Amino acid sequence: MTLAATSALPFKVADLSLAEAGRHQIRLAENEMPGLMALRSEFGETKPLSGARIAGSLHMTVQTAVLIETLVALGAHVRWASCNIFSTQDDAAAAIAVGPFGTEDEPAGVPVFAWKGETLDEYWWCAERIFDWSAEAAAAGATWAGPNMILDDGGDATLLVHKGREFELAGSVPAPGDADSHEYRIVLETLRRSLDLSVDRWTRIAAEIKGVTEETTTGVHRLYELAATGGLLFPAINVNDSVTKSKFDNKYGIRHSLPDGLNRATDVLIGGKTAFVAGYGDVGKGAAEALRGQGARVIVSEVDPICALQAAMDGYQVARIESVVGEVDIFVTGTGNYNVITTEHILAMKHLAIVANVGHFDNEIDMAGLESLAGAEKVRIKPQVHEWRLPTGRSVLVLSEGRLMNLGNATGHPSFVMSNSFANQVLAQIELYCFPERYPIGVYVLPKHLDEKVARLHLDALGVELTTLSPEQAGYIGVSVDGPYKVDHYRY
Amino acid sequence: MTLAATSALPFKVADLSLAEAGRHQIRLAENEMPGLMALRSEFGETKPLSGARIAGSLHMTVQTAVLIETLVALGAHVRWASCNIFSTQDDAAAAIAVGPFGTEDEPAGVPVFAWKGETLDEYWWCAERIFDWSAEAAAAGATWAGPNMILDDGGDATLLVHKGREFELAGSVPAPGDADSHEYRIVLETLRRSLDLSVDRWTRIAAEIKGVTEETTTGVHRLYELAATGGLLFPAINVNDSVTKSKFDNKYGIRHSLPDGLNRATDVLIGGKTAFVAGYGDVGKGAAEALRGQGARVIVSEVDPICALQAAMDGYQVARIESVVGEVDIFVTGTGNYNVITTEHILAMKHLAIVANVGHFDNEIDMAGLESLAGAEKVRIKPQVHEWRLPTGRSVLVLSEGRLMNLGNATGHPSFVMSNSFANQVLAQIELYCFPERYPIGVYVLPKHLDEKVARLHLDALGVELTTLSPEQAGYIGVSVDGPYKVDHYRY
Ligand SMILES: NC(=O)c1ccc[n+]([C@@H]2O[C@H](COP(=O)([O-])OP(=O)(O)OC[C@H]3O[C@@H](n4cnc5c(N)ncnc54)[C@H](O)[C@@H]3O)[C@@H](O)[C@H]2O)c1
Ligand SMILES: NC(=O)c1ccc[n+]([C@@H]2O[C@H](COP(=O)([O-])OP(=O)(O)OC[C@H]3O[C@@H](n4cnc5c(N)ncnc54)[C@H](O)[C@@H]3O)[C@@H](O)[C@H]2O)c1
Repeated sequence: MTLAATSALPFKVADLSLAEAGRHQIRLAENEMPGLMALRSEFGETKPLSGARIAGSLHMTVQTAVLIETLVALGAHVRWASCNIFSTQDDAAAAIAVGPFGTEDEPAGVPVFAWKGETLDEYWWCAERIFDWSAEAAAAGATWAGPNMILDDGGDATLLVHKGREFELAGSVPAPGDADSHEYRIVLETLRRSLDLSVDRWTRIAAEIKGVTEETTTGVHRLYELAATGGLLFPAINVNDSVTKSKFDNKYGIRHSLPDGLNRATDVLIGGKTAFVAGYGDVGKGAAEALRGQGARVIVSEVDPICALQAAMDGYQVARIESVVGEVDIFVTGTGNYNVITTEHILAMKHLAIVANVGHFDNEIDMAGLESLAGAEKVRIKPQVHEWRLPTGRSVLVLSEGRLMNLGNATGHPSFVMSNSFANQVLAQIELYCFPERYPIGVYVLPKHLDEKVARLHLDALGVELTTLSPEQAGYIGVSVDGPYKVDHYRY
Repeated sequence: MTLAATSALPFKVADLSLAEAGRHQIRLAENEMPGLMALRSEFGETKPLSGARIAGSLHMTVQTAVLIETLVALGAHVRWASCNIFSTQDDAAAAIAVGPFGTEDEPAGVPVFAWKGETLDEYWWCAERIFDWSAEAAAAGATWAGPNMILDDGGDATLLVHKGREFELAGSVPAPGDADSHEYRIVLETLRRSLDLSVDRWTRIAAEIKGVTEETTTGVHRLYELAATGGLLFPAINVNDSVTKSKFDNKYGIRHSLPDGLNRATDVLIGGKTAFVAGYGDVGKGAAEALRGQGARVIVSEVDPICALQAAMDGYQVARIESVVGEVDIFVTGTGNYNVITTEHILAMKHLAIVANVGHFDNEIDMAGLESLAGAEKVRIKPQVHEWRLPTGRSVLVLSEGRLMNLGNATGHPSFVMSNSFANQVLAQIELYCFPERYPIGVYVLPKHLDEKVARLHLDALGVELTTLSPEQAGYIGVSVDGPYKVDHYRY
């Protein structure tokens, strides 16, 4: 088995000695993640994920550590990588490698491949590791090609399987095109090396995978595209569009972690400043609310007239970036689109304007354009905070090199919000793994009663008293006393 | 034609001399209703509603007057009644009867049957009038049984047709059951009289109707029930669930008109008080935001764990009414359910607590229970404001006799919000009337591009600058430059 050669390391993290600090944080996070802990109580005995081999690609944070250990408590085997080069919390990664019962000298946790500040080459090396189950297979005397489940955030793990199989079928990996990003060239290189070692590795991996549960908008978007073109290889659950995910994580998560990231990165007073938020979807709504809550004047940009009108009705000025670029102190992008802030915009900004992305990829701000801008100079202020001196004589501050700054400059979403998202992930993994007959190849959202269940698991911790419908009242509004309480198209 | 006998009056309003005042208000409202005015410009020449005979049952307010005259400008003939006994603005009704080109002496408007403070008997008499097109038929030399379109709010007009036909098929109207409300008894009485005059009036009316466009949650709910049991007689468009309706009218409308109604009714300072909002759907969200905006401490009740968690994340205490009833100054119901505030709750309230309903029917607060409460005394403070002296020695203030107080104590939703809702209504009427082949019997929401169109029609008036996607950006996020911008299940 040639591939075993590439998996000598059972894990790779920055520094195992951080494990104790990580474990303390995980313990505190468990208290803030009532949804996951409730699922451990509910399913810890029956272990519905026994036999599941989950390849996880999701920011390796303290919260994710609680998710990983919940999956393990439910019977799963897990390998993990981060889905962003800056988002790993090294202490959490170390704690996961050591495990609750291991020691620094005898780590006994989960194979995790993640550290803060990976290069793109390292990132894709890590991504490949979560598909290499040769050590586990050898130990179990099994002949698995890889995992049988994916838990993905942004779709990189899913991409690797789909592209890997595609190139194996084609018999070769195409040469990168002129338009291909630096990162996609690395993906191609990774798969070229793989093809040299095995002509059918990804094809066999794809055949074993029962499904993927996808965390975020961008990944979900890729899945619907794959499904629409008939290219999707296994069923997918769109976790993002559970109400208790997109209307909680994207909105309330960003509301918390955007100002946190701004503060840790810059210590600039937000009050009184003019802030610009590109996109008024769930992320933009949370961003705008947080900035207004800090006393900033917020200007929103939108392409969708409905979201634009919502922003106006919520009391925000709505303008094109070109109209206001010179008066803005803090720029925040949350569109999931690309080139939303261009080099031209950056050149027109105020001196030391802050440029921050909470969308998805680093092309939302044209970082490539900035890198190649003649006469621009990049000065590192501190990790993930760079002053870009521009040929205009002015500077701008770019956070996290244009990548997700709430993860790069702060610690990402807080535990409570992630408990909602991740409880959806766990229920989605159980659905796809235990009830494959319910999910022919396609993209699904979780049934509403499970979405409501996730909410229910979080009420006690907040002291929420839920009202109970009388049978007569339930009949009157045409629902069952125990829910689901809304029609599927209800928007919340 | 026996039925002609019942339609001697071309209209019935409180006082025609109010027409001039109503016309002034309509003129001002037109400026605040850019969506409807844009539709007049777009469709005023082609008149897509030529030949449409619309029976409208919707609060006869100034805003509705602009809707009615938009329908007429697009070629429709219209008869109108209010869908609530207290919601008519008498000046608007008078102006509609007189019409833009008529005079008080020679009214030349639309047959309208509505005044503020109808009895229930009068209400259902008015509702029946909008189905009596005998005068129009005679004038046109036609043999119509009635209208060919319904524009409904709450479903009373639709109910009349469905029940009327049902009883005609059965050959008799059932005797009221013990559980039937006073109002339903009047419906039965109305239909019994109709059956005495004609054995097939409603059957023939039903056969002519091409469709109904329904304004609100409760009416939509009835439609889905009818469709589920196979009882729906014609296609329906659920206007309520356009984003630019439920996420605008229900939420931003109530946010405006709830405190307005409280102020006009009671002049009680909201700031510092404890307010209780039952239901955290769209209406509840707007109500809670408005009350908090006025400085009240807001407590929310919910039966749906997702909405309950949303309320908690938005910073509201969430509690059952029983837990807090004694500390609340202002009670607001917005659930669309019944018996949400019971007589028992009322007896436990603080002295002069305010009890207000912005849900749908007057059974949301148990008004029937209060009416029959031994020892309770009802003192009229001013129109639509009653002190109920209770056997406990305390009193409560009930607004609009438990019916929609934002309509009964104020002037309902403001024009701008209604311009959104009603632009959806007009587009829905055009869809059902002009493109019946697209809508087999069933309940539909408007296609997303029309929903986005409604939003678009309202941006300029607010000074909103919309960003335009570049073709590359549109391709990147997988939409067309002109929209629709979101997948159908997107929640906003
Ligand atoms: N930073 C984080 O922790 C985090 C968390 C959740 C989601 N996300 C990411 O954030 C992005 C947005 O997520 P969402 O749930 O808000 O999606 P969304 O679709 O609800 O919102 C995005 C909005 O941006 C608008 N938009 C698109 N192109 C635009 C442009 N050029 N200018 C202005 N507006 C534009 C769209 O009309 C849409 O309303 C996604 O990429 C998602 O993966 C990040
Ligand atoms: N006053 C107005 O001008 C106006 C405008 C629009 C809609 N409405 C009416 O308001 C009502 C609510 O509309 P919506 O769009 O908010 O509907 P919705 O379904 O979004 O919200 C109603 C909420 O009430 C909750 N609920 C149900 N029974 C409850 C109970 N016993 N206790 C606590 N919560 C309960 C539901 O879970 C739901 O979240 C409907 O009847 C609708 O027709 C009134």
